[in-house]
Amino acid sequence: MFLPLRSQIVWELVEPGVWKGVVGIPEKYSLLGVAGVTPNKEGFSRLPDVELPSLAHEIVGTLQDGKTALRIPLDRKEQLYGFGLNFQTVHQRGKILNLHVDHYGRKDDGRTHAPVPFYVSSNGYGVLVNSARYLTVYAGSGARKDSPDAPVAKDRNTDKTWTAAPYSDAVSILVPASGVEIYLFAGPTPMDVVRRYNLLCGGGTLPPRWGLGFTLRTHKLYSDSDVRKEADEFAQKGFPLDFIGLEPGWQSKAYPCTFEWDKKRFPDPSGFVKDMADRGIRINLWTNPYVSPDSEIYDEMYPVSGSHTVWCGIVPDLAGEKARKLWADKLEREHVSIGVGGYKIDEVDGYDRYLWPDVATFPSGVTAEQMRQTYGLWVQRITDGIYRKHNRRTYGLVRASNAGASSFPYVIYNDYYNHRDFITALINSGFCGVLWTPEVRSSKTAEEWLRRIQSVVFSPMAMIDAWSSGLKPWSFPEVADNVKEYALLRMKMIPYWYTEFARYHFDGIPPFYAVNLEPGFAFREQKNEKRLTDADLEDNPYLEAVSKEIKDQYMAGGSLLVAPMFAGETNRTVVLPVGDWYDFYTGEYVGNGERITVSPGLDRIPVFVKDGAIIPMMEASLHAPKTGQKMNLEIRHYGKSDGTYYLYDDDGETFGYEKGEYSWREIKVTRDGNGKLKGSISKAVKGKPDNIASVTWKFMTEK
Amino acid sequence: MFLPLRSQIVWELVEPGVWKGVVGIPEKYSLLGVAGVTPNKEGFSRLPDVELPSLAHEIVGTLQDGKTALRIPLDRKEQLYGFGLNFQTVHQRGKILNLHVDHYGRKDDGRTHAPVPFYVSSNGYGVLVNSARYLTVYAGSGARKDSPDAPVAKDRNTDKTWTAAPYSDAVSILVPASGVEIYLFAGPTPMDVVRRYNLLCGGGTLPPRWGLGFTLRTHKLYSDSDVRKEADEFAQKGFPLDFIGLEPGWQSKAYPCTFEWDKKRFPDPSGFVKDMADRGIRINLWTNPYVSPDSEIYDEMYPVSGSHTVWCGIVPDLAGEKARKLWADKLEREHVSIGVGGYKIDEVDGYDRYLWPDVATFPSGVTAEQMRQTYGLWVQRITDGIYRKHNRRTYGLVRASNAGASSFPYVIYNDYYNHRDFITALINSGFCGVLWTPEVRSSKTAEEWLRRIQSVVFSPMAMIDAWSSGLKPWSFPEVADNVKEYALLRMKMIPYWYTEFARYHFDGIPPFYAVNLEPGFAFREQKNEKRLTDADLEDNPYLEAVSKEIKDQYMAGGSLLVAPMFAGETNRTVVLPVGDWYDFYTGEYVGNGERITVSPGLDRIPVFVKDGAIIPMMEASLHAPKTGQKMNLEIRHYGKSDGTYYLYDDDGETFGYEKGEYSWREIKVTRDGNGKLKGSISKAVKGKPDNIASVTWKFMTEK
Repeated sequence: MFLPLRSQIVWELVEPGVWKGVVGIPEKYSLLGVAGVTPNKEGFSRLPDVELPSLAHEIVGTLQDGKTALRIPLDRKEQLYGFGLNFQTVHQRGKILNLHVDHYGRKDDGRTHAPVPFYVSSNGYGVLVNSARYLTVYAGSGARKDSPDAPVAKDRNTDKTWTAAPYSDAVSILVPASGVEIYLFAGPTPMDVVRRYNLLCGGGTLPPRWGLGFTLRTHKLYSDSDVRKEADEFAQKGFPLDFIGLEPGWQSKAYPCTFEWDKKRFPDPSGFVKDMADRGIRINLWTNPYVSPDSEIYDEMYPVSGSHTVWCGIVPDLAGEKARKLWADKLEREHVSIGVGGYKIDEVDGYDRYLWPDVATFPSGVTAEQMRQTYGLWVQRITDGIYRKHNRRTYGLVRASNAGASSFPYVIYNDYYNHRDFITALINSGFCGVLWTPEVRSSKTAEEWLRRIQSVVFSPMAMIDAWSSGLKPWSFPEVADNVKEYALLRMKMIPYWYTEFARYHFDGIPPFYAVNLEPGFAFREQKNEKRLTDADLEDNPYLEAVSKEIKDQYMAGGSLLVAPMFAGETNRTVVLPVGDWYDFYTGEYVGNGERITVSPGLDRIPVFVKDGAIIPMMEASLHAPKTGQKMNLEIRHYGKSDGTYYLYDDDGETFGYEKGEYSWREIKVTRDGNGKLKGSISKAVKGKPDNIASVTWKFMTEK
Repeated sequence: MFLPLRSQIVWELVEPGVWKGVVGIPEKYSLLGVAGVTPNKEGFSRLPDVELPSLAHEIVGTLQDGKTALRIPLDRKEQLYGFGLNFQTVHQRGKILNLHVDHYGRKDDGRTHAPVPFYVSSNGYGVLVNSARYLTVYAGSGARKDSPDAPVAKDRNTDKTWTAAPYSDAVSILVPASGVEIYLFAGPTPMDVVRRYNLLCGGGTLPPRWGLGFTLRTHKLYSDSDVRKEADEFAQKGFPLDFIGLEPGWQSKAYPCTFEWDKKRFPDPSGFVKDMADRGIRINLWTNPYVSPDSEIYDEMYPVSGSHTVWCGIVPDLAGEKARKLWADKLEREHVSIGVGGYKIDEVDGYDRYLWPDVATFPSGVTAEQMRQTYGLWVQRITDGIYRKHNRRTYGLVRASNAGASSFPYVIYNDYYNHRDFITALINSGFCGVLWTPEVRSSKTAEEWLRRIQSVVFSPMAMIDAWSSGLKPWSFPEVADNVKEYALLRMKMIPYWYTEFARYHFDGIPPFYAVNLEPGFAFREQKNEKRLTDADLEDNPYLEAVSKEIKDQYMAGGSLLVAPMFAGETNRTVVLPVGDWYDFYTGEYVGNGERITVSPGLDRIPVFVKDGAIIPMMEASLHAPKTGQKMNLEIRHYGKSDGTYYLYDDDGETFGYEKGEYSWREIKVTRDGNGKLKGSISKAVKGKPDNIASVTWKFMTEK
């Protein structure tokens, strides 16, 4: 029995366009606290000045039954995006979610690898609930009887307009704690909201350049010589390879783990890692954090581990300093210090039957629930810390994350394997400050193999993880050439990818994101800020994205729209935002603010380029350029408009860029006196990185 | 942050073989409290004397993070049953459930119509957690690092005996409240545990005799004359019909509801109900409890309703006296007082998107969560109360229930429609004090139609609810005769059904239950109490039920084993408990403690009878016998053993049986001097009900 207690929310400006409000007494243990975010203050300077969104004063927080209920108003035409890494839906309005870190269970119900309690409104604001609890979200579901805009009762017997889902004028969120911090983000555009969120979290991660090359995971029981052989084969076939991931068998015991090399399969780890580095290939190590009784650190870890085991391994209480240090020191000593490039950190998400139960306890006093919501954050923060200490960037894989993770050098993956849903996850990753890879594991047909390769090439991590199926890139001879062509295209595009990730870091713009964040898809058109009416929607078919969910096409960087093909399909529709769009391969005009149908051959994944876009590319290479290695640039221009692009560069390896050791070179394409397109690139600044050997220009549309 | 606080549990004997333990400070609002249970003390006298199970002292309650964690030990071979109305599983060990009242969502995850927090162990004890909160149950999942019987770590890389699900030695339950009451039930057998649970809850419900006849639900927009016509058609076809259910259109407005008759379709409700009663047909009314603004009680109900609406209707705060009285008075005035026989109370279960959200508040101070867990109990208790006031028994349908409901005259139904899963639900209903009907709604084929009819005849409510599909019992001419044969068999068996329900009331024995509750299926054999070993399991194939889940056959009363056929199948296997079993139709011997395969024709649902069983039947009739109406009994005996049966009778309508106005007639079959079977029935006791006109004997096996 309880009396609801309404709390007055005072909004405090914490960064430009970001306000914090407090309801009740928030718990000290929070998502942003665990992530340890340090806002990228400089990045906010390139965003428009904004005032506190007016809905701030309509947000209600109530303490009831030891919990906190939040209510954030909605208007009738608003759409909502985000609430973490969903796999089947982009539109979240109307959904009921229980945000809970878990392996994705084939239903967008809030249980996912990164159930980030952050959402973006098409009206140009965003909300983050900074709680490490299981949150229940009613994203516009449930109507109050005293709502000023309450829906009207109808008779289901006779009234055909009766609906099972009456209109709801609010998002309601139940936080099972007697207080919480919420963050309100202004826009003005939804993309600006996302940028402010990412900048608050430190700016997006900037991977080492090699992280954007090609990667492969090898058989779990491979020895060092097996791995060398596999690398040789890639080189012989002329297939690019920047890092190789070793699966569980590199460890002496796995599930639970020792974190120690298996002496039979890897008698000389240090020599092996160095040898591979000499071939231009980094080593990534699979692990999970559960400690085997056979690990050297078991006895010391035991008193700082949780009450319950996972596969009979103890669970380090990572909320405590001692467990963190024990684990970090072990990884540093065994792997990082000998040159290992990164980790694939498995099994920190779920399922419930694998992980500690909610009744488990931890010596730090952090609850099992909070630990579940933050374990993925901890393993990222801890390993990131080891690499920072060594001034080497890493880029790895993790299976759980949450709010505050934008700056962590990790890409989420899972065991699910639906190509369409993988693309929807890629779209949703851009709403919540995480990265996602639609990794390629297996395929029944050559067609599916190629289609999956084509899309993973346009993703944050171009990975083949086919050790279990035994497939190699060239396993299907009929598509082997095209697979290789796309792998090499990935490499050619490294200057573009690297720059787009730099924009993630410096400006908070996600490298992969929904077309809904493009101005032509938003409710408000940027130019005139006018509110669209139903009539507008009818007049502008491209705007149907507002009401119709688009979940199979996405932006890859700010210039490219990717519309993957799925096995069994020979054509598809693509909704183009406003503005002229051009074919990536031919430079031909394809449309403007309209729905088009394309029928590419098996050899092409449809990719479209914005008018005036400049895409910097380099020569095909089997490895990403090393520090100081010069590139021969091919700069492509698409469409008829002038264009400007800022090409980013740095040493590609260290954290020097955090101390200003980077360059932005201005690339311009304009028309000369004869109306002919002409390109120019600003000169290198002395003392700043300069990795350009030569430049050639390619005007794709006006050849 | 919290320090776990271990609570000492003191066990208090509350009824014979039932102990209550308290952890922390239990909430006042509980499941048994809402159900208002009054134990059937007399019923306990027929159960064996038992002591506090020794595991009582190993049960641990811990207060942590404002919640209560319970741990109940498990041994290695124990199986668990119950945890509410599951649809796809009978064995619950190893499951993780979040007990939450909801429409069944195609997965046994704890969200169901009756998520009763009660389980029965094959070791012969049971546990009930008397909390109206959403409980998280780890039914033998999760291992503690300090467990004395902890599983041992293995290397997944190389050890083939590695398992993803290591052994767990406990059931853990997380109660989100800082205290809880738990009840521990002794056996010695699992059936005895179930009996004690039902007796604690007042004993099982005893429906009016007409409730065990045939029932039909008519089209939602039927008028009174349409309903009369339908009843006429049933009479003309010689098809039994004891009560008719009116769907939403009887109300002036529905979804939300007025609870008032629609004046066009039902201009004279009282005359209509009386007229139907004269034909021997009761009227059951569909409703949901959400109040339409057009209902006369809306204004008075408004201040005692919840904060949120359901389909724009207000939600009566049934935890408060005033709302209960307002609603009960309305139903009494409009329906019960004019002779309506009962209700079908819809939409008190879920889905989340239909019902009030967890952020809703109620004037009583009961939380949205508690209201969700108990709303089904309240609507049953309130309507039961109206009928008790009128000294007329009712028998209706409800879509949500919970612990404590055994004595409520309601059968659960839902919108799901999988024949196999409906049978599994019927099995599970017997573990948790609820009733379930595998109602017949639609069928693609004559075969499916007949198969579904055949199994609903052996269930607590023989209902056809096909108004939406438009099917009639005789819609498939090729099976119409057999459909009618089974409908009439239902009627002939009323003396048996009625007696088995009396056993539910007086002795707590569920009328429909799992074969696992039969002695031949339990871990311990009743005779010698010896513990079975793996070798025993190999020697006794019938015992494979311990390890292999049997979910498609069930007991219908204590004498019949029903093994339904499903569309598309021409044969099936049946696992027979120990003891000789006979065919219900022919009396022939079929087996003993073994797995048999049967290939009945389309015209037969396999039913088997225990050796020595006595089945009382009456002549076929279109309506159940009225008060005082005499029956011509046909008493069947099966097998070769002597038999004894106690035949129950009372007025079939009122609560007189609660004041001793009932009779148990002893029926005996023994062999005479020539070894020939001979039957006898005890004389009627003066002043006690005596509804038997004549008796004929039928020795099915020894003819």
